[in-house]
Amino acid sequence: MIANPARLILHRCDELARITDEPGRLTRTFASLAMRRANALVGVWMRGAGMKTRVDAIGNLIGHYPGTEPGSKILLLGSHLDTVCNAGKFDGPLGVILAIACVEKLHRQKVRLPFAIEVIGFADEEGVRYQTAYLGSKALAGCFDGSDLRRKDTAGISMADAIKCFGGKPAKLKSARLNPKYLLGYLEVHIEQGPVLVRKNLAVGVVTAIAGQSRFEISFTGHAGHAGTVPMGLRRDALCAAAEFIVAAEKFACKTDRLVATVGQVCAEPGASNVIPGEVRLTLDVRHQLDSARRAGCAMLHKLARQIARARKVKVDWRPVQQTASVSCSPQLSRRLKRAVNKYQSKVAVLSSGAGHDATVMARITPTAMLFVRCKGGVSHHPDESVSCPDVRVTFEVMNGFLRQLAEDYA
Amino acid sequence: MIANPARLILHRCDELARITDEPGRLTRTFASLAMRRANALVGVWMRGAGMKTRVDAIGNLIGHYPGTEPGSKILLLGSHLDTVCNAGKFDGPLGVILAIACVEKLHRQKVRLPFAIEVIGFADEEGVRYQTAYLGSKALAGCFDGSDLRRKDTAGISMADAIKCFGGKPAKLKSARLNPKYLLGYLEVHIEQGPVLVRKNLAVGVVTAIAGQSRFEISFTGHAGHAGTVPMGLRRDALCAAAEFIVAAEKFACKTDRLVATVGQVCAEPGASNVIPGEVRLTLDVRHQLDSARRAGCAMLHKLARQIARARKVKVDWRPVQQTASVSCSPQLSRRLKRAVNKYQSKVAVLSSGAGHDATVMARITPTAMLFVRCKGGVSHHPDESVSCPDVRVTFEVMNGFLRQLAEDYA
Repeated sequence: MIANPARLILHRCDELARITDEPGRLTRTFASLAMRRANALVGVWMRGAGMKTRVDAIGNLIGHYPGTEPGSKILLLGSHLDTVCNAGKFDGPLGVILAIACVEKLHRQKVRLPFAIEVIGFADEEGVRYQTAYLGSKALAGCFDGSDLRRKDTAGISMADAIKCFGGKPAKLKSARLNPKYLLGYLEVHIEQGPVLVRKNLAVGVVTAIAGQSRFEISFTGHAGHAGTVPMGLRRDALCAAAEFIVAAEKFACKTDRLVATVGQVCAEPGASNVIPGEVRLTLDVRHQLDSARRAGCAMLHKLARQIARARKVKVDWRPVQQTASVSCSPQLSRRLKRAVNKYQSKVAVLSSGAGHDATVMARITPTAMLFVRCKGGVSHHPDESVSCPDVRVTFEVMNGFLRQLAEDYA
Repeated sequence: MIANPARLILHRCDELARITDEPGRLTRTFASLAMRRANALVGVWMRGAGMKTRVDAIGNLIGHYPGTEPGSKILLLGSHLDTVCNAGKFDGPLGVILAIACVEKLHRQKVRLPFAIEVIGFADEEGVRYQTAYLGSKALAGCFDGSDLRRKDTAGISMADAIKCFGGKPAKLKSARLNPKYLLGYLEVHIEQGPVLVRKNLAVGVVTAIAGQSRFEISFTGHAGHAGTVPMGLRRDALCAAAEFIVAAEKFACKTDRLVATVGQVCAEPGASNVIPGEVRLTLDVRHQLDSARRAGCAMLHKLARQIARARKVKVDWRPVQQTASVSCSPQLSRRLKRAVNKYQSKVAVLSSGAGHDATVMARITPTAMLFVRCKGGVSHHPDESVSCPDVRVTFEVMNGFLRQLAEDYA
């Protein structure tokens, strides 16, 4: 028996966070060397918890803990092992490490459930390297878009080559597909990444829906010129156009209820201090709980970009990169989750997620539930990301309770 | 004799433009491999024109053509061999290649003047690699700031190391200094990089003054966060602050007579599409003919940045990188230049330069004159940069006339 499982879980989060592509800060992107080392370390933990491990064709790490009968149905647990740039330690890894701890407890107690458990460490959820997210869950759900394999990262490496170098099989991604008829469901535990649980002073909350998300790659093309000799009135400065759009997008999102719009990347070409930028590329991320409101917001933002470009005589190119519909969680699984929460917490918080998760994609092939864990200040995607040991303890117990509940109902 | 010297000059500009650090486009930065190859090629042309060549401690290429007497005074001709990113072929190289052609003509006619001529290919005028310009002319003028040697390029290579790798002597930059008492003056021929000569329909114009310039490195620091979960009202988005500043700076420059302000570089950190930027760094370039107007403009822009930062609860850091006062050209040299222009052109255009030049620095140690050559559409710092063969022919003749004039007056 582990004296305090929460402490071990947090210790493992620390250990995993030392595996990074960038010295001095945590950045672990799809199919990178750091991801390979992360899979190796987490694989050791999985095997120590009594699981057989495999890495599938796209690089997802999967640990299998058998059920009482051969050919038992499978309950999936997990989250992602990749991170954003300069990330915190918990967004993703916490869900994987918690799931391993639950299986480890069953293993030590020599308990088998009437269903098998597979713990998944997804290979890509954040989409940092190829600007398209959920690569890992898409391969498992059988909805991976093969044309994405031709995408290139900033170093010019195609996704197909990256998967190959990682040891995967870009030509055989279909082999990663899970057959829905053997699946019981998917539970993902994840930090909230927002301020609701902090405000409610609760350790965990049950997610009922995940917001839809649209991502765009936008470029403004004007005309480069000498910063000293082209009078202001004759300029077609692509960066001024982009800046006007960034300000307008922020203003529009602020006045639209529950809409969030974010420009996270920007690149001005040619990129010298004494040259008027001729081209600017930027990314736009738009989210809303209601798909109709998100679609209407995106259309309005596109219109704003066109208006700004027209007035400045620059060209705007607007490319949708990703559209994810909002997702409802399984009422059956969520009900069991609420029952388990009820035992360890005075109140059951029910909330929706502004962030996308692997659960968004997994919901296409199996009933899905999500449990959020309070994170300090609601801060995420930042090195300050933090969860408390007592909250992790509660989460661990809720997960164990959920598994017991499911086993009882299933039997 | 060269049948049409202008054609040879343009041919050499083409040849030199093939020497680049970036395949497919012309980018030749300070102390790069391309600069080494450029110095080698231009050195061959110099020696073919009867000059002895040397490369000084910072990497300037200098060709010496002796005068009639040993110990004659020296007239300097030249311009820079480095370029901006994705540059045109003429900004810099044209002035060097024209000067070599003039010396070559003297050499073929076996003519010595009562003064020596030194043609200089300056090693750095654009400042692309280290964000501080005129490194070559500053070394010659003895006003190089030694602390600049610690600056690092985007690859983390210090300027001192770059100079060393190039074959220069960072510890002995003072050896590059020219002694003003041996100098007769400096003439720089350069494309106009603006629309005045095109509008006046004239091949060349005499420059009377060079605008002063201020460069800043500015950073806005807010707080990074998850693009899906932090409500708009709780964000401290560094990129939105930077964008508001870019738009405000443009608006201010537009309404301030003859002021130009340019943000040429921008970098958002951490730089992922699903993360709110926590820090944005950008460059600002401000120019005006009048130093007082430029200083007042910079103060106002700084105030705008502080106001925007305060309103958004982000931090702004404002670092002056370079301040160059406006420069007046030598009336004596300019008078001779005008007389030479008068022979080949119906009208003598007199203009001022919005761009900084090596002449800006060289004016500190010797009387300086500048001749501008019309460029198509006023376009510069862009691959479309273009000069016509007839204009180059006129420029070449004006330079020869200037040399004859100076020799006559000197004798």
